[in-house]
Amino acid sequence: MISPGSTLRTIRERKPLVHQITNYVVMNETANATLALGALPVMAHAAEEVEEMIGLASSLVINIGTLSSAWVDSMLIAGQAATERAIPIVLDPVGAGATRYRTDTARRILDYVDITVLRGNAGEVATLVGAEAEVRGVESMATGVAPAELSLVAGTQLGVVASVTGPVDHVSDGERVLVVSNGHPLLAAVTGTGCISSALTGCFLAAKPDEPLEAAAEALAAFGVAAEDAAAGSEGPGTFHARLYDALAALDPDTLDGRARIETL
Amino acid sequence: MISPGSTLRTIRERKPLVHQITNYVVMNETANATLALGALPVMAHAAEEVEEMIGLASSLVINIGTLSSAWVDSMLIAGQAATERAIPIVLDPVGAGATRYRTDTARRILDYVDITVLRGNAGEVATLVGAEAEVRGVESMATGVAPAELSLVAGTQLGVVASVTGPVDHVSDGERVLVVSNGHPLLAAVTGTGCISSALTGCFLAAKPDEPLEAAAEALAAFGVAAEDAAAGSEGPGTFHARLYDALAALDPDTLDGRARIETL
Amino acid sequence: MISPGSTLRTIRERKPLVHQITNYVVMNETANATLALGALPVMAHAAEEVEEMIGLASSLVINIGTLSSAWVDSMLIAGQAATERAIPIVLDPVGAGATRYRTDTARRILDYVDITVLRGNAGEVATLVGAEAEVRGVESMATGVAPAELSLVAGTQLGVVASVTGPVDHVSDGERVLVVSNGHPLLAAVTGTGCISSALTGCFLAAKPDEPLEAAAEALAAFGVAAEDAAAGSEGPGTFHARLYDALAALDPDTLDGRARIETL
Repeated sequence: MISPGSTLRTIRERKPLVHQITNYVVMNETANATLALGALPVMAHAAEEVEEMIGLASSLVINIGTLSSAWVDSMLIAGQAATERAIPIVLDPVGAGATRYRTDTARRILDYVDITVLRGNAGEVATLVGAEAEVRGVESMATGVAPAELSLVAGTQLGVVASVTGPVDHVSDGERVLVVSNGHPLLAAVTGTGCISSALTGCFLAAKPDEPLEAAAEALAAFGVAAEDAAAGSEGPGTFHARLYDALAALDPDTLDGRARIETL
Repeated sequence: MISPGSTLRTIRERKPLVHQITNYVVMNETANATLALGALPVMAHAAEEVEEMIGLASSLVINIGTLSSAWVDSMLIAGQAATERAIPIVLDPVGAGATRYRTDTARRILDYVDITVLRGNAGEVATLVGAEAEVRGVESMATGVAPAELSLVAGTQLGVVASVTGPVDHVSDGERVLVVSNGHPLLAAVTGTGCISSALTGCFLAAKPDEPLEAAAEALAAFGVAAEDAAAGSEGPGTFHARLYDALAALDPDTLDGRARIETL
Repeated sequence: MISPGSTLRTIRERKPLVHQITNYVVMNETANATLALGALPVMAHAAEEVEEMIGLASSLVINIGTLSSAWVDSMLIAGQAATERAIPIVLDPVGAGATRYRTDTARRILDYVDITVLRGNAGEVATLVGAEAEVRGVESMATGVAPAELSLVAGTQLGVVASVTGPVDHVSDGERVLVVSNGHPLLAAVTGTGCISSALTGCFLAAKPDEPLEAAAEALAAFGVAAEDAAAGSEGPGTFHARLYDALAALDPDTLDGRARIETL
């Protein structure tokens, strides 16, 4: 059942620990978004501790935004530990399609780890299903396939919930497609908002691990509603960015379901 | 003598360099807090340069929030160089108690380095004195000992000034306990505010190296007063966070002593 | 021809990819400044991918603010790849003069890479031309040579455009000296504003690669105008910092030339 408000209420009651192995650019931002929503973030990447940290966590978020070999090793160790414990795992394949190293690493993680939700932009996800894509750095410029179909194909082919974000988001488990149309154009003017959406997906999965399709769509709707609130009164990307955490903290479980624009395609 | 206003005045006159080897999540934040207060931050972690950088610094802050083996090596090298030069050193044992790697690393640093002030939350400090503690990621959930006693025991057992922060802070050198009751609940909604309090402790120690108990309490009072100012007019954790630097920069040495709530237990 | 407004218009039309290998402290900040201006940032430092990423980029920014040996290796690989492709390269020698490791690394990069613009504070640039300088951490405290002369000497001696920033900026190719007097004192109260000016220099170079002297001065003028706008209405360094991105995004190409204070010495 789709109810971002109920899931948000669960997050705030349980305060699940969301283990994030992410990139240097957005660590502060995803930690703050996790806290503002009501969950607890932890950033830990040392091979010496990732397995033990997974033992405390309710979900894992892997983000390859500033990857290097030692970090990729830790992502695989943590991912396998989470797989063994059946903890839900989000993969954010930042920049897949821009370099072979990013594409190959994302594929390697998909092979060795039981990814629950793949959250990326259209270019990144298209790359991973072998479709035509242009990725400039970490931005999706163009793809050869429409986003709804892309999410469906990725869901089937990769055996994940594919969460393809953009002006309108498409989330699919390979059978159903949920379309999320909350959000605001200012999100594209701040770095790491994609990464934040992956972190929040980890929070929603932690509270609703048995319905990953719904949890992934709910996370995007909640983030989109917060962005709508933050944009009102912002004077540009900087004040919008600060107000985004205010808005996440102020999200009201009682009105969230009514404001969420999630439709089944 | 306790006078956060006088120490703040000294910081702003001398602009001491505070060398910080800290975690990826909060580097920008602790650097900005250091600057806003009136000191100079420098982040340097390469084994090739930490000793030389210590030669320029008036204090060292070691924070294990995103530790890995190469970084721990540098923390030990820098810590020993600072010990030899009798420069005051703050240790922030982020996440001690959550994983053995964090607990063991914090203990190793305490063994090999002459730590002046140990600044942590109750769960982290309780872990390091062998008391019962629950640490979820980097959050203290519960401890088997009250914070005032904890600070006293830690001060005695570890031979440091123990600065145990929480809704009310307790700072002890193993003989006296200072209780600091400035602050605001929004501090708990922003990641890295504990790390910022450690960085500011480094600033106050740099200006008052011979009275570490007083300096540690003064730092927490000053930060707490700034948080009180920042909270007024904030709409949530994001705008509070931005306003925190405004408030640190606006701290008035002339009124700070009157606003600081520091009591001897 | 000097026209920051025209160059800004080009940046926003072409959205060039600016590859940045920079320090942990400011990655989020320089990425956001790049985006706010209208270009696309990418942070990538793995030896496995820097050459391929350079193939997508229109300029490269190398910043040694939190250097270590693996990162320096990647800076050299990326720098040589950019040199081969004749892509403009900015070097920000953060902390040169504070430790031998920083000074030597900056010199090594200058030797092996065809640096287009060296953007630093007076102490860093003076160190690199062998003049007297005091650098405390990453702050320039004093130099034995006036900034206009320093930029001229550095331009000649190092074969670069030397962009020496301070209360007034001096940019020289060893023949001409451009003086930029936009800006605001609050820039000195926020960490990483020097690094941001280097990133923006990379953006302007990407759009105007054949006139690096003009591009470097235009970048500083544009950033200075944004700082002037951000300061109006700020209550301190924290809100100023957030508003800086608003102001960069709001920069108006039509009025920028009239507001830029760039003079030939």
